[in-house]
Amino acid sequence: MSKDERPIAVKIAESVRSRDSRVTELSDFYRWYSEYTRNMSIDVRCIALDELVGWAPDPVTGNLSHHSGKFFSVEGLNVEAPGSPVPHWTQPIINQPELGILGILVKEFDGVLHCLMQAKMEPGNVNGVQLSPTVQATRSNYTRVHAGLSVPYLEYFRDSSRHKLITDVRQSEQGSWFYQKRNRNMVVEVTGDVEVLDGFCWLTLGQLHQLLAVDDLVNMDARTVLACLPFAGAGPLMAASSADSEFRAALLRSCQGPADGPGSTDEVLQWITDVRSRSEVIATKMPLRALEHWKRGDYSIAHETGRFFELMAVDVQAGSREVQRWTQPMIKPCDPGIVAFLVKQVEGTLQVLVHALVEPGYLDVAELSPTVQCTPRNFELLPPEALPPLLGEITGARPDQIRFDATLSEEGGRFYHARNRYVIVEADADATFDHPDYRWMTVRELVGLLRHSHYVNIQARSLVACLHSLSGQPSAA
Amino acid sequence: MSKDERPIAVKIAESVRSRDSRVTELSDFYRWYSEYTRNMSIDVRCIALDELVGWAPDPVTGNLSHHSGKFFSVEGLNVEAPGSPVPHWTQPIINQPELGILGILVKEFDGVLHCLMQAKMEPGNVNGVQLSPTVQATRSNYTRVHAGLSVPYLEYFRDSSRHKLITDVRQSEQGSWFYQKRNRNMVVEVTGDVEVLDGFCWLTLGQLHQLLAVDDLVNMDARTVLACLPFAGAGPLMAASSADSEFRAALLRSCQGPADGPGSTDEVLQWITDVRSRSEVIATKMPLRALEHWKRGDYSIAHETGRFFELMAVDVQAGSREVQRWTQPMIKPCDPGIVAFLVKQVEGTLQVLVHALVEPGYLDVAELSPTVQCTPRNFELLPPEALPPLLGEITGARPDQIRFDATLSEEGGRFYHARNRYVIVEADADATFDHPDYRWMTVRELVGLLRHSHYVNIQARSLVACLHSLSGQPSAA
Repeated sequence: MSKDERPIAVKIAESVRSRDSRVTELSDFYRWYSEYTRNMSIDVRCIALDELVGWAPDPVTGNLSHHSGKFFSVEGLNVEAPGSPVPHWTQPIINQPELGILGILVKEFDGVLHCLMQAKMEPGNVNGVQLSPTVQATRSNYTRVHAGLSVPYLEYFRDSSRHKLITDVRQSEQGSWFYQKRNRNMVVEVTGDVEVLDGFCWLTLGQLHQLLAVDDLVNMDARTVLACLPFAGAGPLMAASSADSEFRAALLRSCQGPADGPGSTDEVLQWITDVRSRSEVIATKMPLRALEHWKRGDYSIAHETGRFFELMAVDVQAGSREVQRWTQPMIKPCDPGIVAFLVKQVEGTLQVLVHALVEPGYLDVAELSPTVQCTPRNFELLPPEALPPLLGEITGARPDQIRFDATLSEEGGRFYHARNRYVIVEADADATFDHPDYRWMTVRELVGLLRHSHYVNIQARSLVACLHSLSGQPSAA
Repeated sequence: MSKDERPIAVKIAESVRSRDSRVTELSDFYRWYSEYTRNMSIDVRCIALDELVGWAPDPVTGNLSHHSGKFFSVEGLNVEAPGSPVPHWTQPIINQPELGILGILVKEFDGVLHCLMQAKMEPGNVNGVQLSPTVQATRSNYTRVHAGLSVPYLEYFRDSSRHKLITDVRQSEQGSWFYQKRNRNMVVEVTGDVEVLDGFCWLTLGQLHQLLAVDDLVNMDARTVLACLPFAGAGPLMAASSADSEFRAALLRSCQGPADGPGSTDEVLQWITDVRSRSEVIATKMPLRALEHWKRGDYSIAHETGRFFELMAVDVQAGSREVQRWTQPMIKPCDPGIVAFLVKQVEGTLQVLVHALVEPGYLDVAELSPTVQCTPRNFELLPPEALPPLLGEITGARPDQIRFDATLSEEGGRFYHARNRYVIVEADADATFDHPDYRWMTVRELVGLLRHSHYVNIQARSLVACLHSLSGQPSAA
């Protein structure tokens, strides 16, 4: 079989195993990256909401939107969830009906797939720059509403028929902060020459997997696109060998199996139907001005308890972005969160405990989420039954149970310093947890669902990328 | 293998081949059915909108809703579809946020699967009674909002964990008349005794398939549930034999193949992502009172051209239903429609030409619809480019090209005398039609998508049921 005819899953598996690359050594990457970010000037200043330029509250509703009608708006949301621990609340929410593109360009060098990644500045990043997909653009971005520079490499994704489309699926984003937002997660393979612009570099999946373990380096948009790659199905290449640790062997087995067989997948789909049918949640947009228990100050709209999150505004001056200076509203969480998968080995195969979680911003009631996804501090004020049942298993895990542990950032274009501890904890094989909203699944089942919209939420997708990062060779080149 | 361990697809294939049954001979069925319907008294009278009892227009918006807040409401919808032949319009729409249950109970008799079907009266049926699923209930129905009788057999579907759940998937309904409506399509297999109540009877799939060819007999709800059965995968049982006609052999091959293989399914999913991403349609609810070009008369809210559909009201008196007398608003289409699949044989396998159609009531922009789905008379007033491109291929088909042709009714609980001609036309093998919104697919691919919500619209599901009806043995018992 010629190199070009290899199935994409095989190319992916080979790239995962390529922990170093003839294109960019990881040590060179670090050198380049730190130099690039050092030279990048960025100044993000919190400003009063009234100081926003081009953004104004609607005189009637108080909803905040851009005078162009583009980008996004901040509105109010009324949530009724009868029978749940918090049956009613109101909150601000970001309404961004535009479908954006998150795209990674991939290309083989010496027969190994590489991803073109971008060192991208976003105002909400704690560290200014993070490693991002090749393209990360809202429709307003690329239709040039803010008269900025054009989006490099966009043409590969807007006219993908000229290249090989590997992944193209619309996925949701944070269901507690976004109203029905979706982005198109795309991977396009090219064979021709690609000019590498300033701020971009080629990395293998194996290299990206190593970088995932670094705090605040691989950004949320890169993680979700990586999770949507058609992993698995690579057969012998991903078969466990005697050299593997027991954990890695179980993980590899969990990534194999029929793509979407009639058996287990049907049961998973019926379970999702059941959760979505019995969960009643009615989310209705309301005027931002009319929110209950939220107070508008000069610098923020914040919950009267000081918990959850704030709506605030920033003035940004940056040395490298489509527009050099702008102001915008952002959402700033008050505390860091925890996002965790509990996993266990069952007859040599890794299983992941998934939670079908209802969030008000989802288009379709509930999505599969991590075992635990929460901001622990918020629960000091909520009824005890609202506390995620398995939080203690994560925060109290023994060091030898922790398979992955890194603090990663959420999207820096809308969220200010939003960080979560992403953890994968291995439970004992006999761990059980019987709850109709939770289910043990294989990685293969999750990957099968990722071909569709509305099934796996953004936090779980990040963890799927982290899980895949544990499947590479520990040391071999 | 004991009978009980046969895969469900095998049981289904066997039931499809059972064109007669030891439980009910088809001739006995007709006798029973005509006697039952003759004894059923039903009187449906069109009344003025003001005569509706329990239904009142909102003083501000004019939206029509029930005083209980249950059932459904009729509201206005503003649709913007920039770039399409009709870029803007307003219309009344039914908003029914409740998730209903459409359920068929199945059980083996002498080793053959039978479906418990109901002769059910609905006010909108041209003939009063049609053959319906075992259960057809909105949440208001079964939570007894209108103080009627309880819904028989409902317990099998509300507590399906005690039985074998074969199908459970939420599917959309008419995207031009309903705002994001979905019903749960369920099939539950029981092994214990089931009392057959008055108005119910057991039929095999083979018998139901024969009845599908009869005008206005098998109702819309029965058709959609039948389409969601896990057909295919029955291997040899569904293999084409030399006794089969060329068409039937091609159809059987089209029903086989990998459930959801990584190849073709990924391409289909990417195509759906592409259509949904490039189609811009913004549907916003608006006051019913503020609709443009719709006129309120005493008896209806109708379009000023007399085309499309009307909102009207009925007074119903019936001898057998949960409530004996009631009034309700209904949607009455002004003209009958055409719903058609164009199919062709490619290397001995049947392919179906599917149209990814944007309708304003869909939750997710577009769904796969028949090749042609329209009300021809409406197009006399619309721009010529709005006319479905392949309508002529259907209306002008030679008799020997027509594989299925019956006039079937849409849901009689909401729609008054809504009928469509359902047609399957076989094109020549070299027929091509190149359009980015259309795609040739196998039946197997459609059946794979039917395991998920939001992919295949209600009209296409009816046609999938009709296609399956052509796969049974032409004569053998």
